[in-house]
Amino acid sequence: MIMLFSQRGGDFRRVGNMGRRSTHTPQQLRDLILDAAQSIIEAQGLAGLSAREIARRIEYSPGTIYNMFQNLDDVVLHVEGRVLDGLDQRLSEVLTSAGDKPPAQRVAQAYLAFSTQTPRLWNLLFEHHLPQSTQLPAWYQQKLETLTGRMEQAIAPEFTDGTAETRRDSARALWAAVHGITSLATADKLTSVTSQDAVRMIDDLVTTYLAGLAAPKH
Amino acid sequence: MIMLFSQRGGDFRRVGNMGRRSTHTPQQLRDLILDAAQSIIEAQGLAGLSAREIARRIEYSPGTIYNMFQNLDDVVLHVEGRVLDGLDQRLSEVLTSAGDKPPAQRVAQAYLAFSTQTPRLWNLLFEHHLPQSTQLPAWYQQKLETLTGRMEQAIAPEFTDGTAETRRDSARALWAAVHGITSLATADKLTSVTSQDAVRMIDDLVTTYLAGLAAPKH
Repeated sequence: MIMLFSQRGGDFRRVGNMGRRSTHTPQQLRDLILDAAQSIIEAQGLAGLSAREIARRIEYSPGTIYNMFQNLDDVVLHVEGRVLDGLDQRLSEVLTSAGDKPPAQRVAQAYLAFSTQTPRLWNLLFEHHLPQSTQLPAWYQQKLETLTGRMEQAIAPEFTDGTAETRRDSARALWAAVHGITSLATADKLTSVTSQDAVRMIDDLVTTYLAGLAAPKH
Repeated sequence: MIMLFSQRGGDFRRVGNMGRRSTHTPQQLRDLILDAAQSIIEAQGLAGLSAREIARRIEYSPGTIYNMFQNLDDVVLHVEGRVLDGLDQRLSEVLTSAGDKPPAQRVAQAYLAFSTQTPRLWNLLFEHHLPQSTQLPAWYQQKLETLTGRMEQAIAPEFTDGTAETRRDSARALWAAVHGITSLATADKLTSVTSQDAVRMIDDLVTTYLAGLAAPKH
């Protein structure tokens, strides 16, 4: 790790813009870096992201970023963490709000809406690959568990006789299925597969799947 | 269109390798170009494909490719056409073969197996985007229709009281859902979402969806 800047009492000194000096705590600096990385990804996708470009926007040296994060993948994982948090907030909102549709339908449609509104950030979750042999950190895994938990909660009403494990498996299968329709729609590939729009397809999928869960088992 | 080579009686003359001259009919030359493009994509993905690299492999000039195809996108679309044909052959085989599993289950699992065995060719169908305002050719649309038709055929047994249109809609929703599980598995993202493997998830999805189709409508 290269220390390009002196660190005094936990503060980092912004340089580069001579007319304007300011100091930030490590936490403020982390947030600045993640804000910059997120807006670069929103504007240009992952391909446009570099430590140099983040550094240019926040007016620190690239070395500062490596004081705060292990590497650029680590920065991206933390932006993904924000995306997962944002998605989870939307899902928990639709779960607690009243509505005519079953909760699983509301969760699935909220997932589609989220991906449509922020396609580049949503796509980041699937586009970004860690180098082989690198494990996802525990905090990231935990966020994924929380998201799947929302769908488990949503399908719980149809699960009168299933175990917690089969409910969990079903929640994940349904999640991945909804993801399929969403990703075809976001990639603009759905028009070549079907004239149905994604909202209707998800409606069909979730309705039929829930009816299947509620149907007596042979 | 640039004619770099004289065309005599429909034959193209291979040049570049002075010790070895041969002529090909236009159809042979198209096949040579598609063979080369396909093997480049299989080895390196779409990013490795260029007219220059195709030309180098078949020992013709890049101009020859543009005598046979409108542009590189057109070459790629025709490779995709081969992939769609190969997939359709697999699906029609599992549909006509006997088996314990319901036909929709066999079609869905064959789709997963195809993507697992030839991930780069399969991925090409989703990775390759035509320039905006360019329409997919009718022959390509027709191949997509044929594929969806396999799933329509597969779910027909559960569709005793539905219309042809609702059956078609359900076939497409189920297809896109299976695609979701498949694409997460192929991108090695499934491990981060679930410990279930893709075969089991598709089994869960299709079984529950078919039960939902068969369940009495409210």
